[in-house]
Formats: sequence, structure tokens, C-alpha cells
Amino acid sequence: MKLATFIGLRKRPRLGVVDVEQRAVLDLATAAEIVHKRQDPILADMLSLIDAAAPGLARVEELVREWPSEAVDDLDGVKLLAPIPIPRQLRDGMAFEAHVRNSRDQVAKRTGRPQKMPDVWYEHPVYYKCNRFNVVGHEADVIWPSFSEWMDYELELACVIGKTGRDIAAADAPAHVFGFTIYNDFSARDVQFEEMRAGLGPAKGKDFDTGNVFGPWIVTPDEIGDPHALAMEVRLNGERQGGGNSADMHWTFWDIIQYVSRGETLYAGEIIGSGTVGTGSAHELGRTLSSGDVIELEIEKIGVLRNRLIRP
Amino acid sequence: MKLATFIGLRKRPRLGVVDVEQRAVLDLATAAEIVHKRQDPILADMLSLIDAAAPGLARVEELVREWPSEAVDDLDGVKLLAPIPIPRQLRDGMAFEAHVRNSRDQVAKRTGRPQKMPDVWYEHPVYYKCNRFNVVGHEADVIWPSFSEWMDYELELACVIGKTGRDIAAADAPAHVFGFTIYNDFSARDVQFEEMRAGLGPAKGKDFDTGNVFGPWIVTPDEIGDPHALAMEVRLNGERQGGGNSADMHWTFWDIIQYVSRGETLYAGEIIGSGTVGTGSAHELGRTLSSGDVIELEIEKIGVLRNRLIRP
Repeated sequence: MKLATFIGLRKRPRLGVVDVEQRAVLDLATAAEIVHKRQDPILADMLSLIDAAAPGLARVEELVREWPSEAVDDLDGVKLLAPIPIPRQLRDGMAFEAHVRNSRDQVAKRTGRPQKMPDVWYEHPVYYKCNRFNVVGHEADVIWPSFSEWMDYELELACVIGKTGRDIAAADAPAHVFGFTIYNDFSARDVQFEEMRAGLGPAKGKDFDTGNVFGPWIVTPDEIGDPHALAMEVRLNGERQGGGNSADMHWTFWDIIQYVSRGETLYAGEIIGSGTVGTGSAHELGRTLSSGDVIELEIEKIGVLRNRLIRP
Repeated sequence: MKLATFIGLRKRPRLGVVDVEQRAVLDLATAAEIVHKRQDPILADMLSLIDAAAPGLARVEELVREWPSEAVDDLDGVKLLAPIPIPRQLRDGMAFEAHVRNSRDQVAKRTGRPQKMPDVWYEHPVYYKCNRFNVVGHEADVIWPSFSEWMDYELELACVIGKTGRDIAAADAPAHVFGFTIYNDFSARDVQFEEMRAGLGPAKGKDFDTGNVFGPWIVTPDEIGDPHALAMEVRLNGERQGGGNSADMHWTFWDIIQYVSRGETLYAGEIIGSGTVGTGSAHELGRTLSSGDVIELEIEKIGVLRNRLIRP
């Protein structure tokens, strides 16, 4: 299933199931009122559905089978929001070796100083935490922050946690996943590269309103199959820039979940990004962005996440 | 006022006002029921009170004036939780120059490689984001994570945001503060120093259940006066280890709030740590901790935050 958060005929954000072929979205709260003649709090929003676990998804599947036409909106007439408008927490990995190598090669070219791959990268799936409030969805304008002259996109696969756990073994990690979505981790490269020299990682280089884009929806694991075998592509103003395959993740999501959850509770409703696929950012290719650029990220079995970058 | 979250006679966590001299805590929800004969949702928890802004605090002050004795618990008989058990977001600065210098000197001594202060530290108040779910309060046992052999404490002052804003000028920052509390940022130094070499900053070196301690309560700005003039001290098993004064912050909270909120909405209910005061960690002094150690952090006008570090 493709689970979306959208605003349609009924003004408030709604939880919906998308049928891409029929260009239709089923408004689940309205469907429940029609079918069961009562409101269902589990269908109020994505976090409520996630917290309801398997019985919640079973309820959604039942409504999808009924598919009451009065609860169906035209997919092209609704506004898609980020599938979880405010995630409980947001982490981002750095699992693709080629991205790290390409980025370092660019830095080396710019500074004249060779950049070695850090040993620790091969020892642990390192990550940092993003601002969970900076999230927007498909077709939202991304606002170029005034403090940056150098903006970039990042093509990432994201994993939505569905079941809370601690000390989760990699083999058990799939049972903790609610689904997958696309993540465009917009970055102010000038600020990011400068601040990282202080050792605390990216902060203002990633933290600005609208900087974390997720969507267009969450696809459940049954439809994804192997999440580490998905073709990924980025297009800038319609032209292919780069891409790859999630098979190239040196660290799988199972490795990352195992690492993050060591001695630490990982909660349902958290999101973890894969890190950028090799050639999935403009920086790696020595290219830069301009105001008005339209960035499309496509991942197999999920769809296309499209945003325009606007300098106010 | 000293605002606490506690569990007393009435089992659920309550919001309270602490009178340290009288060793008493006023259960605000119960006080409202006694005085106004009705429940007050604003007094349900600290985030509700923060969101209610000045009118919420006025309601608390009215109940403090009434001080109905049936709503008063013995401070020494209650369990204090973190004042905000799950903050909306958690950031940590690195505002004290002496801590950064001392830490680098220790690394230089260990590795034989001199460590220069990074230029960017003097240009911007750098920060990173912590795990908001790992929060515990005064007297909670801090669990030594199994993946670390080298644990440390950090003595920090923390600023609780009370009013949402964006592009907040330093001069306007005080109006965005709800209050101040003490922060013990427990750190797994071995993991932290290793992972930071990948460039993404601290992650598992700071992220583990019980690793972020706040409390014992939040003190409102009227009682704090100048937050950049507070004596700070850390004691290990009763013996003074180090400390200083918040006057030594190279970057004030006003600078940090201005920097964080550039192009980015800073929300009420977020918490920002100052970074460690010089000599406020054991690492800086070349010392290490053992299971069973009791760490007390004291900050003038706030109080003492005491925790025991336990290896299971």
C-alpha cells in the first residue's frame, strides 16, 4: 500500500491510500465513517496508524477492499503533505560509499588537500540527527536560506520505524519497519562544510525551514520487497543528473537499526535516511543549483518526489 | 518560580511549583481543582504550560499565592522527573572556550598530535542535536551503555524555549526563553571520539537511554536574573572536580538563539544546552568514572542535579 497525508476537498490533513494507476486517493477517515458509521481515531493521522500496528493496517486494508467512491479524491486534485508532517525523530545515515568518496574528491580538488576515507566509516554505520520540524512534502517549494550561497539536493531512501524497540538485532530489524519513502535532504554546502570543521557535524548546513523533504507517500514493506534493490535517480529540470541503486548501500537499514538501537530505544514514528546515493547530489558532480530549479527524485516502487528550490 | 514535573501521592506525573526553603511542592492540577473547582488543561504538564505563555504563568502565580495546603506534597517525598520528560527538540552548543581547549589538550596528550582550536568556533556558535527521548531527571540512575568502556559527565546550563520564533535577533532572544535548568550530558567518550572522525559529529557517543539528564526543575527568568553570571560546580562522590561560571560563555544563549533561528523556526518546548563549562567534564582533567559514581551538578539560583552512574 501507498499511504499518504493529503489535503483534499475536506480541508484538514487526511490520511489516505493512493492508487497511482487510477490517479485516486481514498480518504480513510471519511471511508471509515461511511463503512462503519463512526469516526476511527486510528485513521486520524499517520502516527496514529503507525501506533496501531498490524490491527491498524488490517483496518485500512478492509476499507481499501470496500473503496467507497464517496471517500475517493482525484490524486491530481489534492495537495500531498509529507507522509509524517512532524516525525518523532529524524536521523540520517551515510551508507553509500560512492557518495562519501565523490564528496571527498571534490573537496580535495577545491582545497588541494587529499581526503582519505575515515576508517571509522567502515567500522560503524555513522549517522547524525536532523531537525524534525523542517519537514515538507511533494511539490512544496523549498526556500533557499538567506545565509547560504550554495544549495544542494540529496537523493536518499528513508525507512519509517513502525515498532518501538531496543537492542534490535539486524535479523529482527525488518519487523520494526513501517515502510519506505523518498528523502531529499537539502543542504547549504558552504555553511555545512565550514561548520563541520568544529567537529559537531552538520547543523545550520542542514537546519532551515523546508529543508527536509519526504514523500510522496510511504510504501509498505510488502510492496517494496527487498528495500536494498531499488533503482534511484535524480533529475534537475527534467534532465538526469545521477543515481544508482539501494543495493549499493554498504550499510543496510538492518545494520543501521541495529547500531542506532544499541542501548537506546528506537521509537515507532522515527525516520532514518540512508544517506545520499553515489552521484545523488550536485556537489559530487561539481555542479551548483539556481533559484527556480526543479528537483525530481525517483525511487523504484515508490514514485517521484518533486520540489522547486526558490530564493525569496 | 521553580517549576517541576514530579510523581507524588497522586501517581501520574504532575506539574508543580517548588518551595525549596519549605521543602514543599505545590501540585498545580490539584490546586486548581481545589481553588477553581475545575480541571485546568494548561496545568496538565510542562509543555501545556509553556504553550499557554504568560496567561499560563499568571494562573500558576495565582495558585502559588493561594497555596492550598491539601495540594502540597513534601519535596523530599516525591520523585522528580525531568522538567520536560520529552522535550520537543534538543540541541547542544559548545559555548565555553576552556572546555574545547582542555578537551583538545587531552587528545593531543593521548595521540601526540597537537590540536588547534578550529577557526569556525570563533565565527559561529556551533551546535548538534541530541536524542530527545533519552531524557531522565534528578536522582535517576544513568545506565552505563554496554558498548562503552569510558563514560563521562558534562556540566551544562540549559535554556528552555518558551516562545516560538524565526530569525530572532540576539536582542530579542530573552523574550523567547521560558526558563533555565541544569543539563548533564553523559557521554561515551571512546565511541564519541571514534565516530566524530567520520565528520557527522557525536551520535552513539551521546545517544543511549538515560544519557540526557535535566533538572531538578526549571527556574523562570525573573528568579535567574542574568543567566550569564551563574556559578557552576561539579562534584564526584561529594568531592569538587571542576566548575566555573556561565559568564565564561564565549557565545551567550542570545547568540545561540539568533544563530539557530536563522531561516529556521525555533519552537516553544525546545531545549538548548550551553555546552560544557571548562573543567566541567572528567575527560578534561584526565580522570575516568566508575560504576556507582554519584555526580552532582550545581548551578547558582537553580540547585543541584544528582545522578548515579550504574553499570548493569
